[in-house]
Amino acid sequence: MIWAGVDGGATKTLAVVVSEKREIGVGISGPSNYHDVGLEKAVANLREALDQALSQIGGKMPVTSACYGLAGLDSPSDFTVVEEAITKVKLADKNFVVHDSVIAIYGATGGNKGIIVIAGTGSVAAGLDDKGNYIRVGGWGPLLGDEGSAYMIGREALAHALKAYDGRGEKTSLLDRIIEKYNLKQVEEIIDIFYRKGVSVTEVASLAKIVSEEALKGDKVAKMILEKAAKEIALHIVAVYKRLGFREKIDVALIGGVFRAGELILSPLKKYLAEKSIEVNLIKPKYPPAIGALIIAIKNTAPEFLSAEILEEANKAVERYYG
Amino acid sequence: MIWAGVDGGATKTLAVVVSEKREIGVGISGPSNYHDVGLEKAVANLREALDQALSQIGGKMPVTSACYGLAGLDSPSDFTVVEEAITKVKLADKNFVVHDSVIAIYGATGGNKGIIVIAGTGSVAAGLDDKGNYIRVGGWGPLLGDEGSAYMIGREALAHALKAYDGRGEKTSLLDRIIEKYNLKQVEEIIDIFYRKGVSVTEVASLAKIVSEEALKGDKVAKMILEKAAKEIALHIVAVYKRLGFREKIDVALIGGVFRAGELILSPLKKYLAEKSIEVNLIKPKYPPAIGALIIAIKNTAPEFLSAEILEEANKAVERYYG
Repeated sequence: MIWAGVDGGATKTLAVVVSEKREIGVGISGPSNYHDVGLEKAVANLREALDQALSQIGGKMPVTSACYGLAGLDSPSDFTVVEEAITKVKLADKNFVVHDSVIAIYGATGGNKGIIVIAGTGSVAAGLDDKGNYIRVGGWGPLLGDEGSAYMIGREALAHALKAYDGRGEKTSLLDRIIEKYNLKQVEEIIDIFYRKGVSVTEVASLAKIVSEEALKGDKVAKMILEKAAKEIALHIVAVYKRLGFREKIDVALIGGVFRAGELILSPLKKYLAEKSIEVNLIKPKYPPAIGALIIAIKNTAPEFLSAEILEEANKAVERYYG
Repeated sequence: MIWAGVDGGATKTLAVVVSEKREIGVGISGPSNYHDVGLEKAVANLREALDQALSQIGGKMPVTSACYGLAGLDSPSDFTVVEEAITKVKLADKNFVVHDSVIAIYGATGGNKGIIVIAGTGSVAAGLDDKGNYIRVGGWGPLLGDEGSAYMIGREALAHALKAYDGRGEKTSLLDRIIEKYNLKQVEEIIDIFYRKGVSVTEVASLAKIVSEEALKGDKVAKMILEKAAKEIALHIVAVYKRLGFREKIDVALIGGVFRAGELILSPLKKYLAEKSIEVNLIKPKYPPAIGALIIAIKNTAPEFLSAEILEEANKAVERYYG
């Protein structure tokens, strides 16, 4: 028997395989968000990562059971499309296609109960209880949601800088930083840059770094934006906590670039959680998502094989890919 | 001598001409936002509207002086591009190309001091003092600004409906309205509609109507969204008021679909202005934008010809086009 955990992201696909003899292989390939690269390419990258991993232990497809946590599975139709395509190419006898937040939380908690909050370019939270119940909140994307994400922080930075410029808002050093970054001779040129030439969600999200820097220097508007983001992140945690009926102190794993702001985010986050009487341990994830996928693949077919030791070994093997 | 005022919008172009014998003509053609229809088509539509208007009084191009208030003139480079193209085709001996908010305020106040706030799909405010100083605030578009606009109201409606759905926010009847409007069997299908299929800024803005309706029925979240919009509109007015150094009671003309919400917007708007100790008369615009353009065309070349009578007559002629 061979089990496979696959983390299919927007930039790379990582597969880890484990045999019943406890041999471990790891493979890496290109992105597998099918909205970005197309369905055929996405499936080809899944196969390639899996193929590489199997070649290291002399295994071959179909493996016993594989779990794929994929970026871009946001609407119900996404699942139908991707599951069909994966089943067709027979990578595994049993295929579990899940949202990337599912493998993230299984990895973060080692398959135990807990909550995960991802605040990167976008934002989403998920939780898992003792009975394996899983729920997810947020993750509606830059137009409909993503509150507390780097995108939203960047967008607020732009809006507040322009409000300061035209007299509607408080002065902020964010304005100077934005003028400098986009090399604006007239502030109005920003309209050309953002609408005519077009600016990606990632580019807007990258401004979150400037917000952290200016907040650290004491800029009030930048601080306020981060506090607002922290409040939104807290709302994600509170919603998961309540919907899963938790009453005890729960591990909450924090992932994503927004948390690089450190205490500027963590301190208001803790304050808002305390206000809601939610008791949590803010932790770093125990394992990365690929190990979360592996846990699901094993748990669903041979739960007796799952052990802390095998997970630790697999983690060592994938660690350098997540550096 | 013949003067022309041209209101070049995103859906139509309206031209009004007045001769020194006080003959009046009106012409109408297609859109003249050059970003939407291209520069050539935009200029052709300006010519066509002007041509129609002139034919009614037996006049011909070039007229003495024309003022064009055009949609889509947002960045410095827009003005260069459009001014050159208009000068080249010799519609008038003197051409005044201005942002559409300039003709809107000249129309709204009859060329006198005052403030105008437009809260339609987008938002922008402008002011004019006794010395003819003009300033504008806001109008940065849906990504960078447009606070208080129907777009922003619609966007908040979507975000708050989804926050209610996944447990991050207060319950709101906006969720049911959105489910109904987009015929969603699963709420998650909204991701397909808004990202994959794509939804226009106008479509998002159209949701503001639902927010007004639900606020009127007492929905707290809908009310809160409108109050937030009112506060942003107030910030526009306060910024213009302060930057023009007003101290006296000032006419503020309100334009745009957002104000159709009536007291739901006006009552918090008045409250916020009072908090800032800004004294204003909230009024309806005196004249529509085309008359504002006409005022500028005459004022800049033969101010002695400008009279309340001629403006009233011209207004009668254009009135039915603005319905």
